Amino acid sequence: MSSYEVDLLITNVKVFNSYYKQFRHGMVAVKNGQFAYIGDGDSHRFSAAVTVQGEGRHLIPGLIDIHLHIESSMVTPATFSHGIIRRGVTTIVPEPHEMANVFGIEGVQEMMAASQNTVCDMFYGIPSSVPATPLETTGGSIEIADIDELMTSGNIACLGEIMNYVDVIRDPDCKTNHILRHVKESYPHLVIEGHTPKLLDLDLHRIMLAGVDSDHTHQSIEGMTARIAAGMFIELQEKSMTPEVMEYVIRHDVAEHFCFVTDDVMTDRLAWEGHLDHIVRKAIHMGMSPEDAIYAATFTPARRMKMTDRGTVSPGKVADFLLLSDVNEFVIDEVYKKGHLVYREGDSYLQTVEDKQFPAHFYRSVQLCSLTAEDLDVHVPIQDGLYRCRAMIVKDGSTFTEERLVDIPVRNQRLCWQESGYGLIATFERYGKNGNRAYGLIGGDTIQRGAIATTYSHDNHNLLVVGHQVDDMLAAANHVVGVQGGFCVAGDGSVQAALDLPVGGILTEAPLEETAVQVEQLVSAMRGLGYKHYNPIMSVSTHSLPVSPALKITDHGLIDVNAGKVVPLIVERVGDLVSV
Amino acid sequence: MSSYEVDLLITNVKVFNSYYKQFRHGMVAVKNGQFAYIGDGDSHRFSAAVTVQGEGRHLIPGLIDIHLHIESSMVTPATFSHGIIRRGVTTIVPEPHEMANVFGIEGVQEMMAASQNTVCDMFYGIPSSVPATPLETTGGSIEIADIDELMTSGNIACLGEIMNYVDVIRDPDCKTNHILRHVKESYPHLVIEGHTPKLLDLDLHRIMLAGVDSDHTHQSIEGMTARIAAGMFIELQEKSMTPEVMEYVIRHDVAEHFCFVTDDVMTDRLAWEGHLDHIVRKAIHMGMSPEDAIYAATFTPARRMKMTDRGTVSPGKVADFLLLSDVNEFVIDEVYKKGHLVYREGDSYLQTVEDKQFPAHFYRSVQLCSLTAEDLDVHVPIQDGLYRCRAMIVKDGSTFTEERLVDIPVRNQRLCWQESGYGLIATFERYGKNGNRAYGLIGGDTIQRGAIATTYSHDNHNLLVVGHQVDDMLAAANHVVGVQGGFCVAGDGSVQAALDLPVGGILTEAPLEETAVQVEQLVSAMRGLGYKHYNPIMSVSTHSLPVSPALKITDHGLIDVNAGKVVPLIVERVGDLVSV
Repeated sequence: MSSYEVDLLITNVKVFNSYYKQFRHGMVAVKNGQFAYIGDGDSHRFSAAVTVQGEGRHLIPGLIDIHLHIESSMVTPATFSHGIIRRGVTTIVPEPHEMANVFGIEGVQEMMAASQNTVCDMFYGIPSSVPATPLETTGGSIEIADIDELMTSGNIACLGEIMNYVDVIRDPDCKTNHILRHVKESYPHLVIEGHTPKLLDLDLHRIMLAGVDSDHTHQSIEGMTARIAAGMFIELQEKSMTPEVMEYVIRHDVAEHFCFVTDDVMTDRLAWEGHLDHIVRKAIHMGMSPEDAIYAATFTPARRMKMTDRGTVSPGKVADFLLLSDVNEFVIDEVYKKGHLVYREGDSYLQTVEDKQFPAHFYRSVQLCSLTAEDLDVHVPIQDGLYRCRAMIVKDGSTFTEERLVDIPVRNQRLCWQESGYGLIATFERYGKNGNRAYGLIGGDTIQRGAIATTYSHDNHNLLVVGHQVDDMLAAANHVVGVQGGFCVAGDGSVQAALDLPVGGILTEAPLEETAVQVEQLVSAMRGLGYKHYNPIMSVSTHSLPVSPALKITDHGLIDVNAGKVVPLIVERVGDLVSV
Repeated sequence: MSSYEVDLLITNVKVFNSYYKQFRHGMVAVKNGQFAYIGDGDSHRFSAAVTVQGEGRHLIPGLIDIHLHIESSMVTPATFSHGIIRRGVTTIVPEPHEMANVFGIEGVQEMMAASQNTVCDMFYGIPSSVPATPLETTGGSIEIADIDELMTSGNIACLGEIMNYVDVIRDPDCKTNHILRHVKESYPHLVIEGHTPKLLDLDLHRIMLAGVDSDHTHQSIEGMTARIAAGMFIELQEKSMTPEVMEYVIRHDVAEHFCFVTDDVMTDRLAWEGHLDHIVRKAIHMGMSPEDAIYAATFTPARRMKMTDRGTVSPGKVADFLLLSDVNEFVIDEVYKKGHLVYREGDSYLQTVEDKQFPAHFYRSVQLCSLTAEDLDVHVPIQDGLYRCRAMIVKDGSTFTEERLVDIPVRNQRLCWQESGYGLIATFERYGKNGNRAYGLIGGDTIQRGAIATTYSHDNHNLLVVGHQVDDMLAAANHVVGVQGGFCVAGDGSVQAALDLPVGGILTEAPLEETAVQVEQLVSAMRGLGYKHYNPIMSVSTHSLPVSPALKITDHGLIDVNAGKVVPLIVERVGDLVSV
């Protein structure tokens, strides 16, 4: 018999068999970017262009992350790919609803275009909930016609998370139900991703009847078992990896029903700590077998997204794989993509930075002039007096805020917030659509002095300013306006730390590690101004998220999220001013 | 809270949960043909148009058979649906390669059209191997353009079984490899069904690299475990349900990797014994838990065919379900299709017979005149003498034949087969394409006197005649020609049993049970003429199948199947005739 010509032969490896969930000693042959043979036969049957000595290492499929948002890392797809390839992540399903809120369908299309040549394969989720509510002004929206247009591209994996689960259940005529009916009718095989926090019993079954059959929100045992029993697929992100949940998935026969995902990973954690590899490592440290942890980061996510061409090391699948020197510590030695070495521990791994990857107007998305002190005056056309106002109270450990009622003087038709002990939070519509602005009071675990300004404010990405001193607020805000978007911290009248995000006001084209350092500087500066939160950037950027309880702010005004409506800053007059 | 309006509520049932593989007591609500709720909540929350008292019975998903050929039962899709609905089979994936061999793409399209209104949902496999070899004349073929045309219909589940596995492995340029490359390129998500008997190791991995990733042929433990480890999906038909194979799948964690299928079920077994329900019952009798047996006849087949809308009793899935009065004996009480009762044990269950469901020319497919005695003369333009000839030897228990060399006189340019102790087997091309005919000798466990004639002869469905007496052969053959196709047994100069198959010469529109009785009469008549075989109809109808070893016959001549070529009837001259 003549020898079988292959491109790559890796000998002497322990290969992960996804079907028996066990490692088996043998060799792996690759041809035309696909696995051609896995087994313990005679290696002399093969004529290989390249042979790699496996040296007994573990060979596993490339990791697959099916639920994440690249924008959470504030970098481009190219930088993101660079960041995750060395973490062994070879396929992802990003859902770019932040870019969609800024640019509509074009934001999605340009993220897809920017992913065309990345080493990591990127198949996209179509943002289904842009804007997330009608209570904010965004740069763009995603309508049914946009979904149809995006479906004509070959790069779509799913309809992204359905955020408005309450509307879906209660209002048959809401926009999201129109989208769901259209998608089920027109694309019956399209995966529909869910976001169903705390739903149980009939409500849970109603959202499934509407077509939603996965959930990646925080899981309890009760919620997770109800979801699995109903046929939902569970996507466990790090915050769901509690001891109880992990013990449950380790001890019960539910391996087919869940996978691991990252959802949102901050730039610094992506640069220094890891990505889906970190989740796998953590699962193993929490007592899951490496086989089961790998299965949940390769096989089940691929199957969930109907990616039948990958997720296992078996004949005909795309040859994306990792060589591990230590399976229990999940130490990645080498990463191969379509049979080509793309990362080796110890070799230099430099990012080729490419700027101006996006259309010119993506760098001119902040349609605002510089702010002046007058913009931070809260003008109220009422008589002088003491007024009871709503303040947004920030809490460490959560992105939820609380509402607190505080009494503030109004003098000369100005709300004297600087006399209140609370900071000012203000947002300015920045797409040139209506010039809306809104003001509120802020307290709790946020900064106690200085200012923060950012266009990285979910999901509308209008200019958000938080501060105690007007000069600091102007310094921060005008830096952000001047560089066409970003995140800036100011104190003592000048900028202390800044991260420029010129692409749509939410992404940078700078290299990952440089950006990570700037993110750390931002966090450090915010902590220096008194911010007490495990993740101050996430905390600030969700002050404007009107689907996250309880009191938030958009350009429409203060939002009572649980009531789903705008509420006034001033609740009532409580008395006269006491003259000094 | 207002009550939730549903169409159907079944209370007090033990519902099969496919995700935990266990029965759970509760209720099931159906709305618009889909399951809307499953659980043990308060039934008063529902306002149901119809309520069914479950009385503690077991409720399971409708059975799903993803690999079968309707033509094996010699009835129309309507009759087949009638036959399997009462067996609890609510979705099937038929692959009509017999009709395709007779009529090409039109045969497939008309089978699909004839399935449009059947109670059982039918999603089709596109025949990939028509004709199975170039060594026969058929009425039609399936080419790449036909596949493209069929793919535009919404009713396709897969590319049907790739028969020519040897060519696929050995000849990169064979027709089947062209089809595989085209399908993988143009329809990357289309399921491709396989037929990979006995392949192991590198050959197995090569066929998988070509895109084939299931096998429904007879399984051994070694072959099945190699297939599962390589990522193949196993479809177990009854002949694979040996004690060893069943013990293996019962004891090992491979439930995700196999399902049960029927492949070919003869009319009489379909009428009297059952269908996929029979396989499930047999699996339970062989020691498999009802939960695992049901899983392999509902969940895994649906997933294999990417039918994400069915296969479980869970919210949003099509409400196809069965009520069982005895789960261990798998006794089906009631069958529901899309939430409607379609069968109840004890109620009358009559078939509405509809004839002329197909286009007029489907009833005129036998382009042959009546045969005369001269047609059964084997004319050989050689001198008188004794000649060594190939005889096809039929063996009970198999569709494989053997070749035996026997010495036969030639006198006056006629092969004197009637003096040989062997019967004559002859085939006549019947599509009006070339008038080909071929002759051979037949012996072994076939009939010892009388004659059989049929157009139900795989896969070419030319007229096949086997017999010992010329008058019987003419009686049988001319009955078949006269009724435009069928199966006929003659003895003592007249027809003893006949089944007319006027649709393409391979199907009848008569009711199932009437046809089953005729099939039994055919078998009985053949046994009366000496046929020793557990399934004489299958035995005869595969004499013309040139992919089934070892010596077969087509209109091209005798086929040495292992060599893949036509071989002459007469091997050599061995001597002179001894004058009497």
